[in-house]
This record gives sequence, structure tokens and C-alpha cells, in this order.
Amino acid sequence: MTATVKLPPYATIRRDEDTVVILDQRELPFAVRFLTLRTLEDTADAIRTMAVRGAPLIGVTAAFGVALALQRDARDAALDDAITTLATTRPTAVNLHWALARMRQVLAPLVPAERAQAAWETAERLRNEDAALCHAIGETGLPWLQAAEKKRAGEPVRVLTHCNAGWVATCGIGTALAPVYLAHQAGIAVEVLASETRPRNQGLLTAWELSVAGIPAQVVTDNAAAWLLANGVVDLVIVGADRIAANGDVANKVGTALKAFAAHTYGIPFLVAAPTSTFDPDCPHGGAIPIEDRGSDELTHAVVRTANGVTRLPALPDGIGTGPNPAFDVTPARFVTAILTERGAIAPPLAGPWCRSH
Amino acid sequence: MTATVKLPPYATIRRDEDTVVILDQRELPFAVRFLTLRTLEDTADAIRTMAVRGAPLIGVTAAFGVALALQRDARDAALDDAITTLATTRPTAVNLHWALARMRQVLAPLVPAERAQAAWETAERLRNEDAALCHAIGETGLPWLQAAEKKRAGEPVRVLTHCNAGWVATCGIGTALAPVYLAHQAGIAVEVLASETRPRNQGLLTAWELSVAGIPAQVVTDNAAAWLLANGVVDLVIVGADRIAANGDVANKVGTALKAFAAHTYGIPFLVAAPTSTFDPDCPHGGAIPIEDRGSDELTHAVVRTANGVTRLPALPDGIGTGPNPAFDVTPARFVTAILTERGAIAPPLAGPWCRSH
Repeated sequence: MTATVKLPPYATIRRDEDTVVILDQRELPFAVRFLTLRTLEDTADAIRTMAVRGAPLIGVTAAFGVALALQRDARDAALDDAITTLATTRPTAVNLHWALARMRQVLAPLVPAERAQAAWETAERLRNEDAALCHAIGETGLPWLQAAEKKRAGEPVRVLTHCNAGWVATCGIGTALAPVYLAHQAGIAVEVLASETRPRNQGLLTAWELSVAGIPAQVVTDNAAAWLLANGVVDLVIVGADRIAANGDVANKVGTALKAFAAHTYGIPFLVAAPTSTFDPDCPHGGAIPIEDRGSDELTHAVVRTANGVTRLPALPDGIGTGPNPAFDVTPARFVTAILTERGAIAPPLAGPWCRSH
Repeated sequence: MTATVKLPPYATIRRDEDTVVILDQRELPFAVRFLTLRTLEDTADAIRTMAVRGAPLIGVTAAFGVALALQRDARDAALDDAITTLATTRPTAVNLHWALARMRQVLAPLVPAERAQAAWETAERLRNEDAALCHAIGETGLPWLQAAEKKRAGEPVRVLTHCNAGWVATCGIGTALAPVYLAHQAGIAVEVLASETRPRNQGLLTAWELSVAGIPAQVVTDNAAAWLLANGVVDLVIVGADRIAANGDVANKVGTALKAFAAHTYGIPFLVAAPTSTFDPDCPHGGAIPIEDRGSDELTHAVVRTANGVTRLPALPDGIGTGPNPAFDVTPARFVTAILTERGAIAPPLAGPWCRSH
């Protein structure tokens, strides 16, 4: 049985004349809404408020943001301002900086009159490149699912993932989910356990995008990982990455490292799927990666089931404070079985110069 | 500076003539309500629906449930029925079975006419014993906080805990939180990071009961543990236990093992606080501990912040399933730095016969 995967069903980002239309991720999977970006500020806000998220997609969005800025003012100062403004929207994802460096490299040598057009073209190219990268990452990861299928002998292969690194987070079939989509397309029975990913529930995006593609997906709590990995429920853990240091330490959505530790304890492969643009050769190790704190607003409410079974959403009572709310954590390289890139799989710890080669 | 800790401010369980009044934990910390139990069935329901929770408190509640049953019918069959009904309410916590075994030991030899009175007295005795155990566990743990205080040299000591193992979960000053209360009383500046504990948010109970006692407490996501432990924010992790196998493997609230793995990775002490009644000498290792699945009802809603900053509580869309929802996980003994009991601290792996001695 071979399923045909047509993905993504919605464009996560596209140009519409002199505007950019993005899929607004803040209400997904409860509502499918699109947001029109007209200015640099619109773009920076969309990234900051997480209307758009996912390290690869943030990079491409920033590239389109430069195009939006330059069509109003394409002088050197405006180019610098656009790049600076976008670079400071989110500190951890390095693809953002990578995409902006690409834009500067192409645009800086041009005369202002040529820049807007070139910016649109370069942003489109980055978008198409990202789609190709996703597919190549999927091919790198596919053998892991084929191997798991053999072991399962008829039972579905089960992948645990964290946050969302699927088509919603990219311009193609995702990073962590790319091998899942290709496995499904190749007729492998695959199911995904999507951890909820508090405080912003990106696990629901994962479950939703997979269900749209006809791949069984189940939401589990973030806390369930040790139980799932200890009890043979899961064959592989696959996650995305926001930045990978030169030694192979991986910054990804907060909670990722906990899954890596558990996978290590129970001998389950822990795979990180990311384009090589996620590597930061200037960052020697994970401790040097800036980790964004998203503030306490994300922790002020709780889902409560009352005595009579009604689910309510009260605010925390007075007197109960909230602590640090880091958006990412760092998985030390020794807990990473392999990094799945568009150029193949590599096993940390990395030789320092490797990641300078891209 | 010595603070006087008057705890608990509310009785978690008390007899009121021929009924038992419990603090209803399902709406805590949003509302303080009490529930009157009149029958065996009321008691079994209260345990099953988690109106009452916390391994030590479940044991004492079951003892009072036997008293409620026997005041209606104290014949052998009724005693058997009460014990069987209560023993099957929650599968993981062993204190429940321990308390029921104590009740049977006292009550079975008596003639029916003497049983109800003896049941009330024995339940009261278990309640008072639990309070004394909590205090002794606190004294066992206090030196760890004193040592951390020396290292901090003026900064507050910071304890990370999971779920709720404080006064709300016991008849005294708690288990995991007992050392914190005694440290506060001894003038040590101590703060607690309470992980949310999805899906039922018992971390909010922890933050609430500490704030009631004047001890700073902050709610953090379950996912934040690796970041907190990697970055020197936390001096000690202290958790409770629902059952400890003969080899020292610890069953506790789901998510506990993830914190143990992280603490191990970053060299932070991981302490389990529990009365020796939590040991199950008949259980050779963690794999033999039955782990309760609480069903998918606990996973059907999500806290969502909409684009305009409003917090909503939608149900998951159709097509998004929910996976296993284990209530507990098992922390392998080698990840446990010490078990704090009323008889002192012991370091796993345990010599098998040890835990038969109590």
C-alpha cells in the first residue's frame, strides 16, 4: 500500500503581490487563519508573537520581511535597519540569522533600485530551498523508520516527537516529521506520539498536521516520556532543532533534553532533524547559546477538571508566582544518537570544523 | 530569624461524629471546599476521583473508610468487602494496602460489636502516626538544606519538586516538603520551584500550600526541569513516592523520572521523601509496580493564548486522538541519591531484606 502525501495542504508563507500571507499559528489547530504582513514591523511582530514559528520558517519569514521593508525604502540604512530589527525578534533560532546573512550577501552589493526585486526573489529562493531541504532530511531519516518497521514485524512503528517540526514549522514537509511523511508515503505503518509541549501546546500542531495527512497521531503529556520509553511503546524519538553548537549540543524547544535523557536511559535512538543552516560554527557549545525566556504570561492559567467533571480555565490565585519560562533547553551532544541533515546523518560529538563546511 | 510554621492550616482529613470530612483537592488552589464522607462508597469515590490524593493521605482515608463501613455492618463479610473495595480504588500507591493491612490486623480478631469503635481509633492513630512520620522525614532531609544553605552563602536555597507531597497530601507537614518546612522554621531562606504536573496540575497545590505558609514558591512548566538543573537554579530535587520496590526503584507521579535523569546529568542531588510504609518488599523492582492509566479525559483540553492575548480553553479538534495517560512512572534506583525516611536516609540500590525490617 502506498499512500500519496500531498503536503502541505496550506502554504505556511507566500507572497501576495506586495504583501506576504502567513498561516497564523496561534490559533491552530482550533482555527485555520491567515495573516497578511505589509511591513517590516508586521513581520517582526509576527515572529515575536509566534504567529509564525518553527526555526526554518522563521528564517524564511525574516527574508520576506526584508523584501517588505525594501519595497518602501531600499537604501543602505533601511537594509541595515530591516536586518537588525528582524535579527532581534527571537534570540535562539540561528536559521533566522543565517537567512538574514544570505539576504545581506545578495542585497548589499546591489544599487538600491535593484534591491526590492532581488529581495523578493531571494526570499522565494530560500522558501523553495527549504522545501527541498525538508525532503532531503526526510530521506536521511527514512532508513531509521525502515529499520524500526522490520523490528516491529507488522505492528506500526511509533515515533515520539516534541513541539512541532513538521510542515507547519517549515516551507516543506518539516524536519522531524519529514521522515515520518516519507515513511507513510512508502507504505510503512507509522504512528506519532506528540507531546503536548507546555506552555504553548505546539504538540497539538503536530497531532493536527499529521491527522490532516492521514497519519495516526496521539497527544500525550510532556511528563509521559519516561513511561513511554521505558515500556517499549516508542521506537524512535525525533525532534527538530533551533540551533546546534559546534560540538553537537542541540538547542530545541524546552523539554527536549528530558526526552533525550530518557531515550538514553532506555536505549531508544534520539534523532535530531535539522538543515545544516541550524549549525552555528561560531558557538562552541550549548552553554553559549542564548536561551529566550518567554515571561510569566504563558503560565498564568491552568486547565482544571472540577469535581463534577467540568473543565475550567481559572487564573492562578494571588500569591502563587511563576518561575523562569525558558523557551528552549540544550541537549548535550552525547545524548544525541544522530543529527539528520540534508547532507546525511552525522553522529555527535562533532569535529569542530565539520559544520564550517556548509 | 526563626519563623514559626503552623501547619497544616486546614485538616486534610478529620472525623466529625459519624462522618469523615476531607479537604476536597479537586478545586484547590482555586477554591477551598470540604467534602463529607458518610459511607464506604463515598470514601472509595473520593479516592478514585482524586478528591483526596497523596499516597500517605490515601492510606489514612482508606482507614477511615473502613470505620465508616463498619459502623453500619461490622460482620466479617463487611470487613472483607470494605477492604477489597478500598484496595482496588488506586493501583499504584502501596500505603493504601499497608493501611488496610493494619486495619485488618487490628479488626479481624475482634468480635463485630467491638470493631467500629476500634476502627475509628485505629484510623485516628494512623492519622497521628502519619503526622509524626512527616516530621521525622523532615528532620532526615533538613541536613541537605543546611548543606545547600552553606553553598549558597546568603542566596536562598532552591528546591525543585514535582506534583504535591506537602501537607495537602498527608496528615502532617508532608513528605517532600517536610524538609522545606523545617528549614524555613530554622530560619533558612528557601524557595521552591513547583513543576506544573500536567495533566492534573498538582504543582499548583504545592505552590499554594507553600505560599499559605509564607514560603516563596513559583510554578514552572514540567518541561523546564533540564534548563533549571543545567543552569544552577536548583540546589536539590525532592519528590515523594507512591511505591518503592525492594531494589529502590521509585514509582511516583508521572514526570518524576525525567527530573531524576536531568538531576543525574547535572550532578544535582535527587531525593525521594517517603515513610517506610511506601516500601513494598514484595515488589522486586519497578517493572513489577502496576501503573495506573487515568484515561484520555484528562487530555482533552488545552490552554491556548489567542492572537489578541486572550486565554481560552478549547477542546481538541476532531481527529486529534490522545495517547496513554499513565499517572506514574518509575525512577530507576541508580538515579536516586537518597531516600529520606522517618528512620533516616538510605541510598539505593537497597539490600533486599532492608525494607522487610519495618
